[in-house]
Amino acid sequence: MSWSLRMEHSPASVPAALPYYVAFSQLLGLTVVAVTGAWLGLYRGGIAWESSLQFNVHPLCMVIGMIFLQGDALLVYRVFRREAKRTTKILHGLLHVFAFIIALVGLVAVFDYHKKKGYADLYSLHSWCGILVFVLYFVQWLVGFSFFLFPGASFSLRSRYRPQHIFFGATIFLFSVGTALLGLKEALLFKLGSKYSTFEPEGVLANVLGLLLVCFGVVVLYILAQADWKRPSQAEEQALSMDFKTLTEGDSPSPQ
Amino acid sequence: MSWSLRMEHSPASVPAALPYYVAFSQLLGLTVVAVTGAWLGLYRGGIAWESSLQFNVHPLCMVIGMIFLQGDALLVYRVFRREAKRTTKILHGLLHVFAFIIALVGLVAVFDYHKKKGYADLYSLHSWCGILVFVLYFVQWLVGFSFFLFPGASFSLRSRYRPQHIFFGATIFLFSVGTALLGLKEALLFKLGSKYSTFEPEGVLANVLGLLLVCFGVVVLYILAQADWKRPSQAEEQALSMDFKTLTEGDSPSPQ
Repeated sequence: MSWSLRMEHSPASVPAALPYYVAFSQLLGLTVVAVTGAWLGLYRGGIAWESSLQFNVHPLCMVIGMIFLQGDALLVYRVFRREAKRTTKILHGLLHVFAFIIALVGLVAVFDYHKKKGYADLYSLHSWCGILVFVLYFVQWLVGFSFFLFPGASFSLRSRYRPQHIFFGATIFLFSVGTALLGLKEALLFKLGSKYSTFEPEGVLANVLGLLLVCFGVVVLYILAQADWKRPSQAEEQALSMDFKTLTEGDSPSPQ
Repeated sequence: MSWSLRMEHSPASVPAALPYYVAFSQLLGLTVVAVTGAWLGLYRGGIAWESSLQFNVHPLCMVIGMIFLQGDALLVYRVFRREAKRTTKILHGLLHVFAFIIALVGLVAVFDYHKKKGYADLYSLHSWCGILVFVLYFVQWLVGFSFFLFPGASFSLRSRYRPQHIFFGATIFLFSVGTALLGLKEALLFKLGSKYSTFEPEGVLANVLGLLLVCFGVVVLYILAQADWKRPSQAEEQALSMDFKTLTEGDSPSPQ
């Protein structure tokens, strides 16, 4: 066992570069949503619930819900650094609820469209990944809620589950980005076929959209991965954490 | 600033669960390679350099190089915990060289195949992502080599670059997995077309391969993300690190 020295920002200070990265992530996220809209509007006839345009509800809702809003929900703890922990938690949970509902509309749209057209469901790699990631997202939310917002879970249980929640949250987000790329590719190949290889404008725009999706995923992951950018624990949490350590590990409290 | 208590494993101890996770990752990685081979053998006529089977060299080489070997290169620091840091570094760099060479053969195969058939190059999202990730992989290797193996870089420079190297290494690996999924989807849709929706055996096998690729990516990332599983720094490195901290930050050395 060894003692080590750790620098900590005071809760009030914001790392200098963080706001620029967050602003860049938001710019990228909104660009992804806008380019998805432009693709559907310019090359796919726009959006409607009735008629064969119902399919187009699917990519737009999934990108807004499972990419943009899910990504933003992950950033909540980096952006809201001074608010009470509980407020930030509720915002994190609520953003995921919005993301989930919008994605659900997108899912209903594609299943309903398939049914009306008599198409088979759930045969492609995109659909397998999509259903899997959607179920995992729901389970992650339920487990997260019962550990962190429901009052029952002990401090010890929360501390042990937290790193798992963060890892699987980031993994589900990246898996969502990968699933979106598969869906985009599927939509392109079904429609363009061999014309894809002639650098059709739609193909080029959709490829750019694919790279933008990747960039959004990387920037969100980068912000989450910076150890110095993590939300500093508040004074009362630090005290609690120290009590807990002293009680359970039998260590002497660390010197101030 | 605060003092905090940190548990450290002695360099000789191995976290109990780590070997099982590593074994599982290797089982998954070998399964991915075997299923890729089975897919190409059963449904694509096998592999050859001359003839139209040359295309099949591409998926097999990319999966061995950019997925399996790249993933294993990332795990080197978790697996070799007692060897000298320099030996582990050289193994990490060498595995990436092997991965790079095998992937290069896979790239030559597909460009050569396209040329012989008169097909267009670099029009699809898979190809854009593929070229981007391959170039990033090469750049990451070059920068990693000049910082960590070339003797010029100072300790301070290495310490500051290390987290970036780790983040971008993991990102490039995950991006490689995503690119493989796009390629698999492309190969399926080009050949099966609307038959994909009738649950053709080839489609189902390739979907399973896609999910196995995702699982391998997640397990490697999980092993890398566990803070307790990181390679413990050796005594001489700790001493150096402490000297460095004392010299540059003006902190008093931490008490033992």
